[in-house]
Amino acid sequence: MNYSIITYILGWVLMFESFFMALPCAVAAIYGEKEGYAFLIVGLICFALGFARTRKKPKNVVYFAREGFVTVALSWIVMSIFGALPFVINGDISNFTDALFETISGFTTTGASVLSDVEALSHASLFWRSFTHWIGGMGVFVFLLAVLPMVGGYNMHLMRAESPGPSVGKLVPRMKDTAKILYIIYFAMTVVEIILLLCAKMPLFDALTTSFGTAGTGGFGIKNASMRDYSLSIQMIVTVFMVLFGVNFNAYYVLLLGKHKGSIFKMEEVRWYLGIIVACIAIITFNIADVFGGFLKALPQASFQVASIITTTGFSTTDFDLWPQLSKTILVVIMFIGACAGSTGGGIKVSRIIILLKSVKQEMSYFVHPRSVKAIKMDGKALDKNTVRAVSAFLVTYVIIFGGSMFILAFDNLDMVTNFTAIAATFNNIGPGLELVGPTGNFGVFSPLAKYVLMFDMLAGRLELYPILLLFTPSVWRRS
Amino acid sequence: MNYSIITYILGWVLMFESFFMALPCAVAAIYGEKEGYAFLIVGLICFALGFARTRKKPKNVVYFAREGFVTVALSWIVMSIFGALPFVINGDISNFTDALFETISGFTTTGASVLSDVEALSHASLFWRSFTHWIGGMGVFVFLLAVLPMVGGYNMHLMRAESPGPSVGKLVPRMKDTAKILYIIYFAMTVVEIILLLCAKMPLFDALTTSFGTAGTGGFGIKNASMRDYSLSIQMIVTVFMVLFGVNFNAYYVLLLGKHKGSIFKMEEVRWYLGIIVACIAIITFNIADVFGGFLKALPQASFQVASIITTTGFSTTDFDLWPQLSKTILVVIMFIGACAGSTGGGIKVSRIIILLKSVKQEMSYFVHPRSVKAIKMDGKALDKNTVRAVSAFLVTYVIIFGGSMFILAFDNLDMVTNFTAIAATFNNIGPGLELVGPTGNFGVFSPLAKYVLMFDMLAGRLELYPILLLFTPSVWRRS
Repeated sequence: MNYSIITYILGWVLMFESFFMALPCAVAAIYGEKEGYAFLIVGLICFALGFARTRKKPKNVVYFAREGFVTVALSWIVMSIFGALPFVINGDISNFTDALFETISGFTTTGASVLSDVEALSHASLFWRSFTHWIGGMGVFVFLLAVLPMVGGYNMHLMRAESPGPSVGKLVPRMKDTAKILYIIYFAMTVVEIILLLCAKMPLFDALTTSFGTAGTGGFGIKNASMRDYSLSIQMIVTVFMVLFGVNFNAYYVLLLGKHKGSIFKMEEVRWYLGIIVACIAIITFNIADVFGGFLKALPQASFQVASIITTTGFSTTDFDLWPQLSKTILVVIMFIGACAGSTGGGIKVSRIIILLKSVKQEMSYFVHPRSVKAIKMDGKALDKNTVRAVSAFLVTYVIIFGGSMFILAFDNLDMVTNFTAIAATFNNIGPGLELVGPTGNFGVFSPLAKYVLMFDMLAGRLELYPILLLFTPSVWRRS
Repeated sequence: MNYSIITYILGWVLMFESFFMALPCAVAAIYGEKEGYAFLIVGLICFALGFARTRKKPKNVVYFAREGFVTVALSWIVMSIFGALPFVINGDISNFTDALFETISGFTTTGASVLSDVEALSHASLFWRSFTHWIGGMGVFVFLLAVLPMVGGYNMHLMRAESPGPSVGKLVPRMKDTAKILYIIYFAMTVVEIILLLCAKMPLFDALTTSFGTAGTGGFGIKNASMRDYSLSIQMIVTVFMVLFGVNFNAYYVLLLGKHKGSIFKMEEVRWYLGIIVACIAIITFNIADVFGGFLKALPQASFQVASIITTTGFSTTDFDLWPQLSKTILVVIMFIGACAGSTGGGIKVSRIIILLKSVKQEMSYFVHPRSVKAIKMDGKALDKNTVRAVSAFLVTYVIIFGGSMFILAFDNLDMVTNFTAIAATFNNIGPGLELVGPTGNFGVFSPLAKYVLMFDMLAGRLELYPILLLFTPSVWRRS
């Protein structure tokens, strides 16, 4: 294990976090809030630590996959710890565990909150909360790779450890260029959403924070009622953008090139993703028509909630915990499906679900025609056996972590639906669950132990299990 | 697809069912119950149909794995339909769907009941209910293979399709002898339990039915309160035998040979199985000590329920739905683990869990040392790659069926814990779940649609998914 290069990269991460903290400082200055000092202080500390560590490049640049995974996992933890400190210092969230929960929830784009009254926070803290979504959505290393001249050939390892999906596609031969293109698309789409929200007469501060939350598929709101009290047009804009940010970004790149007209619908994952969304909206609209007094009134509610949950954003316009069981069950099922790979969304990912379904079909054909079993195909291309094995192993690991989390949360003696959906909502980086952690509840009901388990789940979910699990594998830490 | 041999084997299955039905007829004669006629009538019909079909051996004895799977799946369905008819005819369960549910629940050794008052049934019907557990426990084909001179080389296919576990081990070179040995052990252990229960002053009828339910890990009781009102010594005998019937029967064979003293504890699966049981009993005893007023009073309750759930039997001595959340969650988790492969118990099976855990460990080592990944071992031997793949595919299929069942059950608009545990309890062949289907509730609360889904789950669970799923695969039905 090459420790010096890991701490070197951690230094860069802290440097960048210090720059990001300049934004809430600016917000505090505009609103004349004293809470901004906390961000200034922590920002300076981050800068000092980062600057000291990055002045000298490490000599040993040997860097393998495991270093990549450990670097990414540690970076997210360090980033979250420093990101939580301003909340503790300025008193907005004085308990460190709660502040850390909120920050991890932010960076992992979960949006699960321990706060019962977010409107009591300063503008600076609200801005930082939402901005962590934006940073975490596309990933901090994608950002670093896009702007930094990194040494050695370890870019791929870092990107692979941080990017969601069963396989990371390079858009262009150079990783750096891929990272740039991704961030440009991400930035541009965020700006378009901000502009549209402003056109729909949303205040600037609300438009910025809401767009950050949508882009990163995070879901922290700045109102206690989340998106409920905004106009229908604002809700519809957010609905559309949630769906758009859940699409595989490769699709946008292909669209941008303009070479393949309509090819976005030829991508198997995107087709399934949109198909699932339409089907779920249709069923739920019928199911809740009575609740809202008519299909036309139910349709936007169903659309918003389905888009919010499947993309793992977690905004809400209504308390769906009060919906009939069928609608609630559909929402719980799509919590696990999640968005497309290569998007900012979480969950198991649509492409993994497709591969899993196809592997079951393949397994059945072993019984019918043992000698003539065909390879699993995606978008017409045969999938590598290792990819299929890795996807199955992912589900197995996922189920085991889920079961373990259920066990520890049970010590709190809360009801099973709360526990189950709390884990589903954090592990899949969504935000709200049902019952006590439903849209009107919050995660403050849990004990510190349970909160740390849920923080683990959020990080494990965002980094797709292995980087975080490897931290607990003793053999990883051996010097080679 | 060789249809003639499938119907030929189905004929034999019906013949045997007619013999089995002689037993409830005898019980009715002893108790002077008119309900016995129903078993006589259906038994005669089964015999007539079976006799007609088995008089002539089919000419074409070509028989592949898919024929084996389809034969087993169809046999279990046909057996259940005819097994349900007496209940409808004698009026004990007049609704056909309910009678079918109860019979499938019996044969699959689930023990989930739609009845609110089992004490209202005739002795003949109660006996038949419990006896279906005994038939289903070891499997009807293991029985057929043990006593019948079957044609061709298809014995292995049938046994593989019906026997639980990731891989079927032949105890001795000839399948027929393996089947005989298994049934002798099964029969002998059942007799020992009956004798011990009689010694503990349980009435003969109760001892017989309870032993059938324990041996098959079924769980149908003949009292509305299940095992609650029996003496502590009876409850303890049942606890021990539930655990014993959940052990891999290979272990008993090895013990019988007397060659390998203590080797039962050398078997990795048995060690894990007993370890999990002890750990769960310990935690639950501490957790429920307050409920029962002391550790010594809580210990037998915890032991009975843990043994009952992990072996997927489903007897109960208390309403564990009232226990604290931690204990309930542990029971739900062990619902999925299940008993050992090669036992009469259901669930995912301990050996599969071990293989899954080891495959996760292996997956992690791909990240640490990509070039030196070792094969997964069980009992010191390296596992075939195909076995590992099949176990992963099993879990994937399992999760998908579970999700699909949740979706359809949600139409009934019952609470989520009821739905979730109802599926867990039927799919893993346990019996009771929590909330509305807890120890004091029953499955009569569900709509006919939901009941058919749960019947599918019971059959799919007992036959380990693929035989039942293959029935829905069009390509299986093509004549080759």
